[in-house]
Amino acid sequence: MHAHVPVWFQRQAGRSLPEYHELRREGSILDTIRIPELAAEITLQPIRRYKVDAAILYSDIVVPAECVGFGVDVKPGVGPVIENPFERRADLDRLRPLEPETDTAHVLDTIKILAGELDVPLIGFAGAPFTVASYLVEGKPSRDYAKTKALMLDDPALWHDLMERLTDLAVASMRSQVVAGASAVQLFDSWAGALSEADYRTMVLPHSTRVIAEVSELGVPTAHFGVGTGELLAAFADSGADVVGVDWRIPLSVARQRTGNRVALQGNLDPAVCLAQWPQVEKTVRRILNDNGDHPGYVFNLGHGVLPQTNPDILQQVVELVHAEGQVAELPRAQPARPHP
Amino acid sequence: MHAHVPVWFQRQAGRSLPEYHELRREGSILDTIRIPELAAEITLQPIRRYKVDAAILYSDIVVPAECVGFGVDVKPGVGPVIENPFERRADLDRLRPLEPETDTAHVLDTIKILAGELDVPLIGFAGAPFTVASYLVEGKPSRDYAKTKALMLDDPALWHDLMERLTDLAVASMRSQVVAGASAVQLFDSWAGALSEADYRTMVLPHSTRVIAEVSELGVPTAHFGVGTGELLAAFADSGADVVGVDWRIPLSVARQRTGNRVALQGNLDPAVCLAQWPQVEKTVRRILNDNGDHPGYVFNLGHGVLPQTNPDILQQVVELVHAEGQVAELPRAQPARPHP
Repeated sequence: MHAHVPVWFQRQAGRSLPEYHELRREGSILDTIRIPELAAEITLQPIRRYKVDAAILYSDIVVPAECVGFGVDVKPGVGPVIENPFERRADLDRLRPLEPETDTAHVLDTIKILAGELDVPLIGFAGAPFTVASYLVEGKPSRDYAKTKALMLDDPALWHDLMERLTDLAVASMRSQVVAGASAVQLFDSWAGALSEADYRTMVLPHSTRVIAEVSELGVPTAHFGVGTGELLAAFADSGADVVGVDWRIPLSVARQRTGNRVALQGNLDPAVCLAQWPQVEKTVRRILNDNGDHPGYVFNLGHGVLPQTNPDILQQVVELVHAEGQVAELPRAQPARPHP
Repeated sequence: MHAHVPVWFQRQAGRSLPEYHELRREGSILDTIRIPELAAEITLQPIRRYKVDAAILYSDIVVPAECVGFGVDVKPGVGPVIENPFERRADLDRLRPLEPETDTAHVLDTIKILAGELDVPLIGFAGAPFTVASYLVEGKPSRDYAKTKALMLDDPALWHDLMERLTDLAVASMRSQVVAGASAVQLFDSWAGALSEADYRTMVLPHSTRVIAEVSELGVPTAHFGVGTGELLAAFADSGADVVGVDWRIPLSVARQRTGNRVALQGNLDPAVCLAQWPQVEKTVRRILNDNGDHPGYVFNLGHGVLPQTNPDILQQVVELVHAEGQVAELPRAQPARPHP
């Protein structure tokens, strides 16, 4: 029996949808996330519009660090900003363990609402230790991750202690999301591609592997994503994740070689392609589906988040094309959202 | 006979040197570049300090576009900004051919001063058509190159016409630099790594290849650089350049496989590593030299530009270590700076 290739879009909820801008108030995204009814509605909007095969929780990777009081804000048009960045050992004390039921009650309430509404899987998520560390250390989005790398090299003991704290945050957050009803989880190591494979394997992978292992215990599928991580795909697969993200810089066939076919792949469409007219988008989507062939281990997605200026009609056409043309041998195994037994 | 591995640093001149900050005035770098005595002195500073094996002209990749009147500025702390970005066919008229002797007389005067002062090769340079186009189209530094990619996909005819104009600018600029005394040239396609290899080969490589071919006619070595271009190394080697840049994301040995050993390599040290304490830097430099072995086709360099906060003493130690430990079979072939016969 054949089924269609499943499809969803990173950042499908939020900034590219007119119905989102109608709902959302001024100020930080973190304020919107704090209102469960609103966050649940924003999560549902792209499901209704696009008929995608999964919902992804409307939240942010800095939420756990914010909720333990590290002092994080998300500035519109900029990204996460930290008034007092992580600099020294004493700053570890600002990263106490997360108590999800109280610290992130609003996130769990959002998931509980969604578990009653969704008939597709709900993907929960967390920021991977490296990417969250890069924000905490740089204090803002960075192009070179210079301070982060300098800390990693100059004080590996402190670096690993920081990564341990952030690993604990990610594990506690993702486990609580699963218990509340998330059917799968994705670990976002968006900026890991700034590292060489050698540094990634020594300084980052052991921590990401622990996150994946401790969440996988709950029996949900795990995905692990980064952008510009073509050289790290084998290492990402070594994390134990079921699904590994691939951006547009390499074809799926090359990604399959690099991951030794041990994992399912997700991604491959350049979000910037979705800004072009439909014939160009169609050509690219067809090339990707063709490159996948009928390999069952593939989830269609963008190689990074939906760009804010994207026309939603184009994404809708992408979903229709993937559903019509992408034939695979078996269905993906994540279950619809519901509280964990 | 054995010689040392040659070493220079991208962005060795300028922002990381205290003697530069003493000389330089407020305002745009473009104003400083316009004063030949000043630009020549800034070019010479790192030669005196570090004893590097090559000078690189203190200039900027947007100079030719600025000098034909496109309307470009370089904002301190931001980068190139364009008040009226490139949007439509009519904007091609804002990119008339460069007349180097008049439009960039100040650049050529700088090179003539340097030709009388230097006893190491002087590297001239230009921005590659794609990277310059990305600034002209986006209007400012970008993370996603969304407008550039949308133009490329939606109007390939206009895209190629734009690339032709920018190719002509790069060729005219680099040829005039060689005639004035530059001993080698480097084509900076810093942001080409944002593209898939398929798009790069169709939309970019033919133009970069023409730049390299038309400058190589003058008999000088050519280098071609980008960051995050690991997946594009074979294509970069196809441009005909003698030397191809490699960032820190892959080892030299992998880069040699990907380029089929057809070109010399340059780079490989992460500029962020130079922010660490010396023992960490030393370890990384030794690893790179060891990975190179005694392969003669290697120029030690950073995988991107020197970061502004770099301690110059560290770079000096890098030069000393490379000169002491990096043994290769033959000398590089670029000649000291002098006017072209």
